[in-house]
Parts: sequence; C-alpha cells; structure tokens
Amino acid sequence: MGTDGNRSWQMSGFGLSKLKPVNGEIPDPGPYELLVRTSAVSLNFKDKMIVDGVLIPDLSFPFVPTSDAVGEIVAVGSAVSRFKVGQRVLGQVIADWPDGDAPAVLHQHTLGSSLSGMLSEHVIFGEDAAVLAPAPLNDIEAATLPIAALTAWFAMAEATKPVPGQTILIQGTGGVSLFALQFAAAFGLRAIVTSSSDEKLERARELGAWQTINYRAQPAWDEAARALTGGLGVNHVLEMVGGDNARLSLNALAADGRLSIIGLLGAMEISFPIIPFMRNRIVVQGISVGHRRAFERMNQAIEALGIKPVIDKVYRFDEVPRALQHLEEGPFGKIVITTA
Amino acid sequence: MGTDGNRSWQMSGFGLSKLKPVNGEIPDPGPYELLVRTSAVSLNFKDKMIVDGVLIPDLSFPFVPTSDAVGEIVAVGSAVSRFKVGQRVLGQVIADWPDGDAPAVLHQHTLGSSLSGMLSEHVIFGEDAAVLAPAPLNDIEAATLPIAALTAWFAMAEATKPVPGQTILIQGTGGVSLFALQFAAAFGLRAIVTSSSDEKLERARELGAWQTINYRAQPAWDEAARALTGGLGVNHVLEMVGGDNARLSLNALAADGRLSIIGLLGAMEISFPIIPFMRNRIVVQGISVGHRRAFERMNQAIEALGIKPVIDKVYRFDEVPRALQHLEEGPFGKIVITTA
Amino acid sequence: MGTDGNRSWQMSGFGLSKLKPVNGEIPDPGPYELLVRTSAVSLNFKDKMIVDGVLIPDLSFPFVPTSDAVGEIVAVGSAVSRFKVGQRVLGQVIADWPDGDAPAVLHQHTLGSSLSGMLSEHVIFGEDAAVLAPAPLNDIEAATLPIAALTAWFAMAEATKPVPGQTILIQGTGGVSLFALQFAAAFGLRAIVTSSSDEKLERARELGAWQTINYRAQPAWDEAARALTGGLGVNHVLEMVGGDNARLSLNALAADGRLSIIGLLGAMEISFPIIPFMRNRIVVQGISVGHRRAFERMNQAIEALGIKPVIDKVYRFDEVPRALQHLEEGPFGKIVITTA
Amino acid sequence: MGTDGNRSWQMSGFGLSKLKPVNGEIPDPGPYELLVRTSAVSLNFKDKMIVDGVLIPDLSFPFVPTSDAVGEIVAVGSAVSRFKVGQRVLGQVIADWPDGDAPAVLHQHTLGSSLSGMLSEHVIFGEDAAVLAPAPLNDIEAATLPIAALTAWFAMAEATKPVPGQTILIQGTGGVSLFALQFAAAFGLRAIVTSSSDEKLERARELGAWQTINYRAQPAWDEAARALTGGLGVNHVLEMVGGDNARLSLNALAADGRLSIIGLLGAMEISFPIIPFMRNRIVVQGISVGHRRAFERMNQAIEALGIKPVIDKVYRFDEVPRALQHLEEGPFGKIVITTA
Repeated sequence: MGTDGNRSWQMSGFGLSKLKPVNGEIPDPGPYELLVRTSAVSLNFKDKMIVDGVLIPDLSFPFVPTSDAVGEIVAVGSAVSRFKVGQRVLGQVIADWPDGDAPAVLHQHTLGSSLSGMLSEHVIFGEDAAVLAPAPLNDIEAATLPIAALTAWFAMAEATKPVPGQTILIQGTGGVSLFALQFAAAFGLRAIVTSSSDEKLERARELGAWQTINYRAQPAWDEAARALTGGLGVNHVLEMVGGDNARLSLNALAADGRLSIIGLLGAMEISFPIIPFMRNRIVVQGISVGHRRAFERMNQAIEALGIKPVIDKVYRFDEVPRALQHLEEGPFGKIVITTA
Repeated sequence: MGTDGNRSWQMSGFGLSKLKPVNGEIPDPGPYELLVRTSAVSLNFKDKMIVDGVLIPDLSFPFVPTSDAVGEIVAVGSAVSRFKVGQRVLGQVIADWPDGDAPAVLHQHTLGSSLSGMLSEHVIFGEDAAVLAPAPLNDIEAATLPIAALTAWFAMAEATKPVPGQTILIQGTGGVSLFALQFAAAFGLRAIVTSSSDEKLERARELGAWQTINYRAQPAWDEAARALTGGLGVNHVLEMVGGDNARLSLNALAADGRLSIIGLLGAMEISFPIIPFMRNRIVVQGISVGHRRAFERMNQAIEALGIKPVIDKVYRFDEVPRALQHLEEGPFGKIVITTA
Repeated sequence: MGTDGNRSWQMSGFGLSKLKPVNGEIPDPGPYELLVRTSAVSLNFKDKMIVDGVLIPDLSFPFVPTSDAVGEIVAVGSAVSRFKVGQRVLGQVIADWPDGDAPAVLHQHTLGSSLSGMLSEHVIFGEDAAVLAPAPLNDIEAATLPIAALTAWFAMAEATKPVPGQTILIQGTGGVSLFALQFAAAFGLRAIVTSSSDEKLERARELGAWQTINYRAQPAWDEAARALTGGLGVNHVLEMVGGDNARLSLNALAADGRLSIIGLLGAMEISFPIIPFMRNRIVVQGISVGHRRAFERMNQAIEALGIKPVIDKVYRFDEVPRALQHLEEGPFGKIVITTA
Repeated sequence: MGTDGNRSWQMSGFGLSKLKPVNGEIPDPGPYELLVRTSAVSLNFKDKMIVDGVLIPDLSFPFVPTSDAVGEIVAVGSAVSRFKVGQRVLGQVIADWPDGDAPAVLHQHTLGSSLSGMLSEHVIFGEDAAVLAPAPLNDIEAATLPIAALTAWFAMAEATKPVPGQTILIQGTGGVSLFALQFAAAFGLRAIVTSSSDEKLERARELGAWQTINYRAQPAWDEAARALTGGLGVNHVLEMVGGDNARLSLNALAADGRLSIIGLLGAMEISFPIIPFMRNRIVVQGISVGHRRAFERMNQAIEALGIKPVIDKVYRFDEVPRALQHLEEGPFGKIVITTA
C-alpha cells in the first residue's frame, strides 16, 4: 500500500465547481485502523451544505466530503483485534463516541467533518469506529445507514422509549424521515407523515404511515394532527425544518410530548411560546446521530425487523455533482453513489 | 361545620382592588376529603399574574387565589383512610397527579387555578392530594414548599439525576431559585447564581453558591459561566426568565446539557439557534411543579438534609395586598402570610 | 340496587369443595365507585393457589376469589367523573397503584386478595381503578388482560425497554407466557419458547416464536438457548418456575442480561451462583402485575398491534370448579368463564 | 526504555509463597499507550483470592497481581492525544468499558485479571483506559479509587439514582463499604452500617452513619433494620457477603427496594424466597466495578464533595505478602502499598 490508485472527490474550495475527482495514494492503516475499499457512499443534506460552505465555514482544503460508506476490509493494522480482512463494515460517523454520553467536545473526530470523508475508493476507519454491515442488506442499502438511519433510531429508540400505540409525527419523506417511518411502523407506533406532495404521502402510506397530512392543503397541520389524535396531541414530533415550523410542532404535542430536533432544512432558529411548553412539560432534544453501540443495536434490529432502506436513486462515482444537486430536489429516501 | 366563620381573600374581578376579605361558610369535607384549618400560605409570582388577569384570562369569579398552604386537619370525610384529624398537611397543587406521567389534560384539578385557592382559614384537600408537612419545619417554612420547592426538586431530582461535581446555573434569588440553590449545595452540585445585586449574590454565597455572576456587570453572563467551567459549559441551567435570556442559557450549556424551563419573568417566548442545539444534544424541558410522590420524596429529603426554606418576609392575613405587591420587588426567597 | 340477584362463587373455607355458588345483593356504588355487570372472568394460576389455601393462608371467609373481569358499567357513584354508564371496563387489580412506584405496603387494595374478587355477576371498581377495555377485543378476550397481559407487558415494556433484535426466553405456554410471546413478536424481539410439549412448541412458532426448546428433550435448555444466540446468551428471561430452574435461567443470560421473576409454578425459592451474577451484571427483578397507567398504555398498544389473546377454553358460570381444575393441566393460554 | 529496572511482585503459582519480587524490563508504550511510574497500589479482597487460586483457577504464570494503581506518566505512545507526560493518572480496571453497556464478553481486558496487574514500578495503560487522579487526593488516597470507590459509586450513583432521605444498608467496614458510607453521607442518604465490632461501628458513626447494627448482638439484623425505618424496610442494601446473608438482606428491603450484589466474602451462592421478591418488586443487580465515564464523574464528585478515602494501613513495597494477609483480618477501609 501507500500505492497509487485511490480515486476520490476532493473540494479545493466551496461550491460544486471546486469539487473535483483526484487520484491519490491508498493510505496505510495505523496499528488500530482498518483499510476499507468502499463499494457505496450515501449522501445527506448536510453534505450539500458543507460543499456550499454553509455548514462549516472554516473548513480546510483539500477536503473529501460525505460521511456514509460501506466497504470491505482489505487490510488491518498490526494491533487490530475487533475485525479482520474480508468483513463488510460501516464507519461510525462520530468516531469517538462509543456509547453513553458523547465526548465533551463534539465533532473533533467526525467523518466528513473534522475527519476526511467517504468519497474515496479507499478509506480508513479506526477499529473502534466501525460496525459490521447488516447481512440482509446489499451494499447500496447498507451505505444509507450511518447518518440517516442512526439519527432516526437514536431519536426513537435510544433517547426515548417507543411505546406501541403512541403517535409520532414525521415531517417530510427524506432519508431520515423514511427510516423514522419504517421504524415507527415496526415499533407499533402510529405514524403521521406530512408532505406537500400527495404522491409522496401515498407512498408513505404504503410504507406504513397511519395517517398523512398534506401541509400545503392544510397549513394548520398542527391542528390537523391534533384532531387525528382525538384532541390529545401527538406524543413525539421529529422536527426536520426549524423556524416557525417548530412552533407548529410544539402546538401539535400532547402532554409529556417530545420534540426531537433533527433537521434544519428551513431556518437556523427555533422559537416557542413558553406557557404551553411548561404546562405540557414538553421535552425538546437536539439529536446528533448516535453512538456506536446504538449503531450495533440498530443493525441487529434492522435485521430482525426485515427493514429495507428506501433508495430514491443510485448514481455512479463519476456523477457525484449531479447526485449532490439531487439532494435539493427533495428525494424520497436516500441518494447513493456506487464507488466500485 | 357548614358553619359561619371562614375568612378568605376573594377576587370579584381582576386587579388588586378587586381582591377583598370575605367571611364565608366553613366547608364540609366529602367522603374522601380533608378539612384543613390553615396556619400559613405562601405566595408565588404567578399568584400576582393571576390576580392581575395576565395568566388565566378566563377565570370565573368569585375566586380565592394562591396555591400553597399548610394547616392542621380538623375533620375528615367518612371514607378517609390515609390521614386523621390533628395531622399537619400540605396540599398537592396538581391534585390529580399522584405519580409518573401527568394527566393527559393538565390543570383541570389544580389548587388556585381550576380549583379554589388557599387564602382561606379553612380549605379542603382530597386525601389523595395531601402530604404530611416535614416535622422539622415550622408552619411558615412548611407553607413555602408546594410550588417553589417542588418545582426546583422536580427539575433537579426527578426529571434528571443530580451528579455531584456537575455544575448548575440558577437565575436569580427568588423562591424557586433559592430552593434550587439549597438543593444544589446539598446534592454536591457546583451552583452558579446570577443576579443584578451584589448583595443578593453575597447572600447566595452564604447559602452555598460555588460561584456568582452579576449580570448587570457582566451582560455576557453565558460566557462568564462557560469560563468558570474551564470552557466546557454548564451541565444544567434553570431558566427563570424566557425570551432572549434563554439564548444565553443555551449558549452557557455543555454538551449533553439540560435547560429546565421554569419561569417566565420576562418574555412569553423562547428562541434558540438550532445548530448548537443539535450539535450539543441539548435537552430543554418544561417543568410544571410535580407529582405527589415527588412531594413526599422531597419532604423526606428536606428532613434528611436539614434544609430550611429562606423566607424574605412574613405578612399578617390582613396584609395580603401588600404581600402580593412585594412579589414584584424581587424578594430574596419566599413571601408568607400567616392565617391563624 | 341493594336488590337481590347477584350470583357469585364464594369460598367458605379452603379447597374446591368449599367454593359454592351463592345469591347475594347487588352492591351500591359509593360516590367514587362504579357498579359493573360482568360478562367474563379469566383465571390465573394463583386463583387455584388461593382456593387451595396455599397463597394466602390467613384469608377471611366468606371470600369471592379471582381478579380479572370485564363488564359494563350499570351505575356510577355521585362524584364519578372519569366514567359513565354503558362503558365497558376492566378492573385495575392493584387498585391503589395509579402510576410510578407502587404503594409502600402492597396488596392492601388488591382485587381477589385483600379486596373481594370477580366471580360475581356484579362487582364494584373504584373509578381510579378501572380502565376502558380495548374496543377490538370481545368480552372473552378482554377479560384475560388484567393480570396475565399486564404482567407480561410490565416486565417487557415498563420495567425495561424492548430493543428489536434482542432475544427473550419465555418459559412455557401459559397465560402470561403467550402474551409475552405475542408482545415479543410485535416488538421485534427474537423469542425463544420452552415447553415439554412439541405440539405446544409448534403452536408457539405459529404465534411468532423465533426458536423453541423442548426442555424434556434438552434438559440443558440453558446451554441450548445460549447456542441459539451464538454463545452470547439471552438478553431477557421470563422466569415462570423458580427453584433450580432459575439457575438455568441465570446461566442462559447474556452480559447485562435481565431475569424477570414472574411465576412460581415450581419452588418457593430461587438461588444463584454469585460470581457469574456479578461478572455479567445481571439484573433480577420481581414483577407484580403493574400500575393503571401501564394498563392504559398496554390497551392502546394491543389495539395498535392487533393482538388477540389466546384462549384455551371458555367455561360457563356454573362450571367454575372445572375451570379452576383446568389450570393445573397446563392450559395453552387463558381459561375464561362467562358470567352473563 | 525497554531497559532494566522494573521491580514487580510476580506469582509463579498459587499461594503467597509463590509470590516473589522480580526485576524486569521497563516496557515500551505502544502508539496509544501510556507508560506510568507507579507511586501507590491498593489492594482488594479479590487480590488475595487470586493469589490463593480461588477466583481465577486457570491463571497463567508468571502473573503480576492487583488492579489499582496511581502514578505519573513518564512516556506516551506516538499517537496518544488524551494525556501527556507528567500527568498523574489512575488505570481503568475494565479497560474496554468506556461508557454505557459493558462489552459483551467481560474481563477480556481487565487489569490484574486478563491483563497484567499493578504490583510493578512501571505499568502500561491504554490512553482510553486511564483517568486523571483527583487533585485533592495524595497518591496513597488516590490509589484506593479504581475498584473500591468505583464499585460503590456505580451501585449508588450510576445503576440507580440516590434520593436524599432514603435509606441504605451497608454491610461491614471494608474498602467498598466505607466508600459507600462516605457517598451515602454526602448524598443525604440515611446509612445503616452493620458490623460485628462496636468499635468499628463507632468509627462508622463518625464517618456519617445514621444508624448502626452489631450483627453479633442482633443476629436478626434484617428485623433491626426494618424497625429503624418504621417498619417500611430499607431502600437499598449493598450485599457484601452472599449465601444466607442475602436472605436477610432481601427481608430488610422496602417495596421497590434494591439489592446490589457486590461482594462474596461468605458463600458462592445467594438464595431468596420468591413470594416477597415478587410482592415487593425487588431488584437485585450484580455490580462489577464500572465504566470509565463513571470513573471520571466519580472523581469530579469526590473533589466537589471533599471526600477523603479511609486508609487502614500503608505498607512498603517489600511488605506485599504482609499487606495481602492483612486483607483477611477485616481492615477498616483500604490497604495501600507504596511503590516509590
């Protein structure tokens, strides 16, 4: 190794025009590291924000973006004990978060952020920052798990306890939202999905949505959701938008309700009226992917529950810019790039 | 009973001028009820807001305000089994919340809100909505517990787990804040107290504050608090103000930090930037007093910890309007009215 | 009311021969009580132990046994606000346990134990000790829930958090065990069921068992269970037997495993080796039915999950002794008696 | 390094006579490792059991026993980022347990068990398996923390939530027990200490015991403890003995009580009657030291609470055999060996 032939997509500055294919060296794994030949990489909305310079304004270049990859271990460091060559693994995105509480200073060791990203044919994972990919999923499916699935899982199964029969409101039909919908259906939760597209809502029903609300037709979707629950409100809302949308989310909540702050597709602020917040003892929690133990538990669950990730479209490795642009069109599920 | 001679303060409308002493009948306890001759009543800031018509605009009159009282049981209903005549009790303010989750629709059975209040010589408690007063406290001290102490306790000991050595930031030196400070000191938490008065901060230090910040001298008290924690941030902030203050609270928080929304002395809104909220996995929780089991546990703790409530001033029963006005002057601890 | 015509089965002493039908008065509900005309009563193994004098040796006679009934409210006390005539309800067996922690002294207000039981055409429930029956279940099905289903639910969904993909070992195919199996399948848990009957194991597979073990064929069922989990052990075992069986249960557990003590079909003792207990950080928890809030959550879940209780056999009200004897033959699911 | 001059005590077989001082090489730290020059080592009862061949019968020789050491970092591996030379650190005994759940197979990386022990002048810690020693403690005090203090902390502050005013029964006055007593006093718990020595009980009172029971004078110490709690029972018992003693522990417990299984000074078995276990919903939990995050939290707490470990006796490095024998005499607190 240390040999030539590692194709990557590398940013030399912000903007899609500065993202270019390069051909670099295949890295050597350190003693506790794994060298992985990737087969598929999935995209998240934040990847576009990073490429555009919106999310991490002080990024250093050159930089390989994206965080989610699956691949086969082709070499292991001298001290590696948890894995061996030939296994198919996924990277743990927040690499220094094994279990329990997160590190005191977050995102010092995060793939595609403080650490180099996944748009390469070969990548390095620490052996403590990798998990086996679930056997029933193919590479394209498995590549979608590290951020989107783990974020939904963490909000629904780790930070709280899902109680079958309770209601959950899921905003939109992007990558996290569809995993949330699939988990909700598998957990026996009654999922209410919102979207501006009746066609997407129809597909959400096919994936197990209990009810759907077209928020273009019903801008007061908070009241609509409340009505669906007999006036009591929704037990859990996954906030994907921020801004004024969060006010409606709060208003849709039942007593002891929970709002998980997951996405920021809209505004950079959230604001709430304070009295109903206190009166209903609302809990609002910021979610930031999850730890490796949760990843392992989730993979076990995905296997047991027979969940198959929803893929909107698969792109070739030479189509990365087009794939990133697709993120802005509101995909139904995940965008994946094949690297092999 | 059913006899004359029950002096009360009654609202015939909003405003202090509509709050008058009246002489009514002593009520009869129903089969599961306790008749209590009160000896002391404590005030909370929300009592002034109710008298002024700010908090419950649709209140029905006549109405006896306030929620916190201690007194002696002078008669019990025919089916009462939990208490007997002669015992000294406190009322459970959210009367239909015995333990666990709150009722689905809150404040249908709340003292001084949906139920009649405590500014009477005789009041009625359901036997399931009363607790024994802690033996080491005198009546004036015991009367302060039902809202202020239980709110602080619930935020610090029930909704979360206090870990000695962790930091908590307490805003101001009102009733809830000083209980929070006393609990913090007893739990081994490092309490940072904020106030605009150096004199109050000095007294807070005497009560066990680890550090103090005069937010008039240091308007960027969030940065000051963060500096006190070696840059890591505070583990728990008790939000007493709302509005823009809550932004500073959020900014003062450590990773995995918690913001308990307790008071609304300032604005009716809270708003936050969304990225640090997610990045640090912040939890914001609205607190609404607490359940009866927590009240019992707290009383047991107050006894074991030797905590004595901080009383700012005691008023006579004929001084109720003056006592309510005192609330707006920012008392150091609790305002109590003796009824006997 | 207070009128004649309330048929019951009453014990005048211990033993089946002392259990006789009687005709008493229909009771009047107190102010906070519901009068319920029962339609179905289900039996639990402990009912036979009570009739035989094994479980409560100091019982006072006459005594109406059993704890589980469904029926229609035919009258309500003057102060009742939670229910109305015509609703179909189930009794909360531990009547003074609404939520959270149990009463400090348990079983002072337990149906069919310290309170009169359910083998009557008319029974009284406190309004705080009743829940609506799940609409999709008929009377015979609904009658099975108060002890068997709630015990399984409490062990699996309240005292712990079910994680899909984890394993649970369920001993036998009695009432609690089959509810546990149905919950396990609905929660995405991998259920291992043990029995001495291949035919029952076959039916357990049809209900969703992931694996089965005939403990007669494989007396070292602990090792068999461990082998099924790739050597890691089972995450949760529901102990139905006690005695030496519990040693095998402990031995079947994975690290951080949990043993819920539910039944005592075998011995009155449990014993464990202490080193693996500590090394694997085992949690053993005694389960005693559950609180009313859990009952409400469970009913909501049963509805959402489409669970139908498994009934072994339905008896007429004049067949009570035969029904009780059936308990000792190891029914597959529940025994129910119709009262109407 | 790799140089001569690392004095150790090494077992060439079981029995004190096979434990000898040797002079070996100073090891080189691997890339993620710390080389630590120890200053003090503390002993635990299990160390004597290991030397005697009772606890780990299949130990491989030569073997350096014991698990607890404090020392200064004298060299760090090339990739170390969490520590630097000159810092004073303690080793995390279960080296592969950073936070949350324990590893699926425990004790594959445990100091003084599967890994080499601490009776050396120089030892190696992984950088992820070390914590800073609390600044206010001297070396002798700090050396006592890794097993005894963390075990008590984990049982009292991690596996459960300490509620001030609740009762805890602590058996004996050994190392874990005295840490438990000091934590109890600092947490506001009412600690009941048992011992066969009135003199030790007197010293326990000085350390903050609320009540004491001489179990020689009162063999029915379970009933005595229950009487001290007004008949309700104790909330938490720390089991240090096992065997029949655990039956008394169970009998001393209140409803919802908890029994933490910590020690095995007596028998290798525990056994309980099953009915009170279920009736009171007892939780029994095996405790096995704790994770690194808990260690860090504990050290922060020890500092904030001003806790000073209780040292029974300090031995020189050439007195190791005598120090180990001392363990069997029932020390009051910890036995420490200085290595420098």
